[in-house]
Amino acid sequence: MFHADFLCVQRAESLSAIIQTMQTYIDCYPCFLRQAIEASRMAGGTQAQEREIVLRTLQILYEQPEGATPPAIGTKVHSIVREVTGNDDPYYQVKQESTAKAIAMLPKLRALRDASKDKLETSVRMSIAGNIMDFGPNPEYDLWEVVQRILTQDFAINDMDSLRESLTKADAILFLGDNAGETVFDLLLMEVLEKPVTYVVRGGPVLNDATREDAAAAGIDWIAKVIDNGACVPGTDLSLCSPSFVDHFNTADLILAKGMGNYETLSTVDAPIYFLFQVKCPIIGLDVNAPAGSIVVIKGRKIDY
Amino acid sequence: MFHADFLCVQRAESLSAIIQTMQTYIDCYPCFLRQAIEASRMAGGTQAQEREIVLRTLQILYEQPEGATPPAIGTKVHSIVREVTGNDDPYYQVKQESTAKAIAMLPKLRALRDASKDKLETSVRMSIAGNIMDFGPNPEYDLWEVVQRILTQDFAINDMDSLRESLTKADAILFLGDNAGETVFDLLLMEVLEKPVTYVVRGGPVLNDATREDAAAAGIDWIAKVIDNGACVPGTDLSLCSPSFVDHFNTADLILAKGMGNYETLSTVDAPIYFLFQVKCPIIGLDVNAPAGSIVVIKGRKIDY
Repeated sequence: MFHADFLCVQRAESLSAIIQTMQTYIDCYPCFLRQAIEASRMAGGTQAQEREIVLRTLQILYEQPEGATPPAIGTKVHSIVREVTGNDDPYYQVKQESTAKAIAMLPKLRALRDASKDKLETSVRMSIAGNIMDFGPNPEYDLWEVVQRILTQDFAINDMDSLRESLTKADAILFLGDNAGETVFDLLLMEVLEKPVTYVVRGGPVLNDATREDAAAAGIDWIAKVIDNGACVPGTDLSLCSPSFVDHFNTADLILAKGMGNYETLSTVDAPIYFLFQVKCPIIGLDVNAPAGSIVVIKGRKIDY
Repeated sequence: MFHADFLCVQRAESLSAIIQTMQTYIDCYPCFLRQAIEASRMAGGTQAQEREIVLRTLQILYEQPEGATPPAIGTKVHSIVREVTGNDDPYYQVKQESTAKAIAMLPKLRALRDASKDKLETSVRMSIAGNIMDFGPNPEYDLWEVVQRILTQDFAINDMDSLRESLTKADAILFLGDNAGETVFDLLLMEVLEKPVTYVVRGGPVLNDATREDAAAAGIDWIAKVIDNGACVPGTDLSLCSPSFVDHFNTADLILAKGMGNYETLSTVDAPIYFLFQVKCPIIGLDVNAPAGSIVVIKGRKIDY
């Protein structure tokens, strides 16, 4: 769970914004600690390594200056896990399992989509449903149940009509992926876009975020050009991405961005962008003004219709 | 969430027990941090105080030797909150609200109990339902829905028949309370026990645990003798309780103990005791071998029928 960089912008605006921002970050601390433990286990860390990871995470959190952004903290925490365990990709197995699980569901999902009245909205919903796979290691959800719920759930923020219009106008689409497994659900959406798509993955493994390998495993190569953003951090922090990706981003006709991480890092960037995600934590919920559990399609700043 | 002291006993038994115990405690760290933030807000702490509380909690967690018990850590964390905010009872308002909310439901609950075929089991279930009020500040549950669910939910561990037999034999009952608000639900059980009851509260405010004042607000004084255990810590750590309470405990005919905290601190004590609670966290779930969300009636070591 990484929180909006754009809070930093708000920070300059008012004292209450400062207070809000600080509160937000403190609220994320327990979550970072939980993530450190989870990632250590994913990486097959020993008990001693797990303890070392937790202690070093406590130290990192203790040393953060006020206002340190959660993506920055998260990047440090996950690099500790990789360093201590010597495992460069702790979520490797979870990512593979997520992808396999989603692929097994693909024929059923395709049939459902193709039988629906509004294939675009159905596949947008499916793509958002796949966003549940952010909780890769969490066995507490039934993927099929999630899909069924999200196919009928009201959007808490619904810019679907605007998205529909943008899709008609655009010549090509830049699609910012999120997690492995979710990639398969994105495929369902890309299949009905009827425009050339460039699919963007992370520059290297971080959490269960999709890399080139994960995109290939999901079969994305067959339908889109796959590129990476050059950064090994969650979301899309443009200041850390490769110049060639930033060029893609700046010249894109239309951008679809999946997941909270992309929203957090791009929501204040002036771009022809739509954010598609599930609100999975109350802190992000405060930002977008929608409760945890919501699904949203949010148009970006540069879109005025 | 405080974890079983008895894990310390197991620790001597085998290496795997040691590993299990260590894992357990590390898993509790994010929860302590969350509690520190929550308690700081309950106490009306300023942003600066909240930050200080979080930093000092990080330090406490960092300094814990391997195997430090969660109740010991929790006691330190909550004393930091009281010290920094200058608020001796951060959960005061939440406790009052919980009690008021439960009292408002009392006539409906009494009618439901009295119309039931098995008043004892119904009121045991109601008393366990009240245990949800441990999450006092959490607005995410609907109390009435919880009651309805727990009235029909299967017990994951069901020593009701044994409890029934013990109640017939006992001359008097020592009832170890848990949280404010839950006290009102305990009243419903005490009303059908038909034996003299001594109701035990904490020696002073800690978390939203019930004190003498909370018991009085719930009307417990009218049906039971209320005493306190002399300790200002969650659960019932006999080594910290007053000699007079320990004497009550050691000479009790039959003890009913509510909530996870009492289970965690007393489950390996040789006593004629029954534990009644909801399994609210997966760590305790591992201990009792029941998933989070379960309800249990567990007989203690000294009861062999």
